Amino acid sequence: MNDYTFDEISIGQKESFESTVTEEMLDAFRKLTGDVNPLHASEAYAKEHGYDGRVAYGMLTASFMSALAGVYMPGERSLIKETSIKFVKPVYPGDTVFVEGEVVDKNDTFNMIVLKVTMKNQRGEKVLRGKMDIMVRG
Amino acid sequence: MNDYTFDEISIGQKESFESTVTEEMLDAFRKLTGDVNPLHASEAYAKEHGYDGRVAYGMLTASFMSALAGVYMPGERSLIKETSIKFVKPVYPGDTVFVEGEVVDKNDTFNMIVLKVTMKNQRGEKVLRGKMDIMVRG
Repeated sequence: MNDYTFDEISIGQKESFESTVTEEMLDAFRKLTGDVNPLHASEAYAKEHGYDGRVAYGMLTASFMSALAGVYMPGERSLIKETSIKFVKPVYPGDTVFVEGEVVDKNDTFNMIVLKVTMKNQRGEKVLRGKMDIMVRG
Repeated sequence: MNDYTFDEISIGQKESFESTVTEEMLDAFRKLTGDVNPLHASEAYAKEHGYDGRVAYGMLTASFMSALAGVYMPGERSLIKETSIKFVKPVYPGDTVFVEGEVVDKNDTFNMIVLKVTMKNQRGEKVLRGKMDIMVRG
């Protein structure tokens, strides 16, 4: 786990990691949230509706932003204040998601950084774009 | 699970549910996302840093928006395209989160609805504010 202080962070700094989405993760997310929508639970249903298979919950993919902030940038001192997320393409079990954050702004008054987030699948296709305003605890 | 079609949805319509956050949910979310930040894992660490105990991951609380869209409004036909989220107050294990969505806009061209999201704890304190742009599948 990283532990950058506010002063140690520069605009342009990047952190990244990757995670492979599995069917078990979809099942765990369903139990956690109560989202029993069949698009995420039933391969047959998803295929009938034009998808390649069970679709990963958008908010599950988005949850990798939690690790991006809390483990990588800034790491331990992270407090996410605000975020915005666009779901660009579906993610499927078996896909490996490459998660990258780039510091695009710093606010000295509030010890806040702005992280631009990009997630791509193993084919280099963008699946999610996002932004996080993160307070770096003193 | 609800199954509202686009035409059946009116501006002003509301849906809600509640969920009690547990330590086990924080553990499951840590496994799912890899966010090993001690603020969410260690009661001692969280108390040392001015919190009442282990703090629920913001993105875990935000994940209730997945169920709000996929089960309640619009339910089965839900496809979340975009969301923005503000974390207003910490949520702790043992807190019951009341999740409410209100339809504040409809776009006939793209079959999209805009849902304003409010989450409150058992004391009526707002813990999260959000917005979701959701496509209602035909």
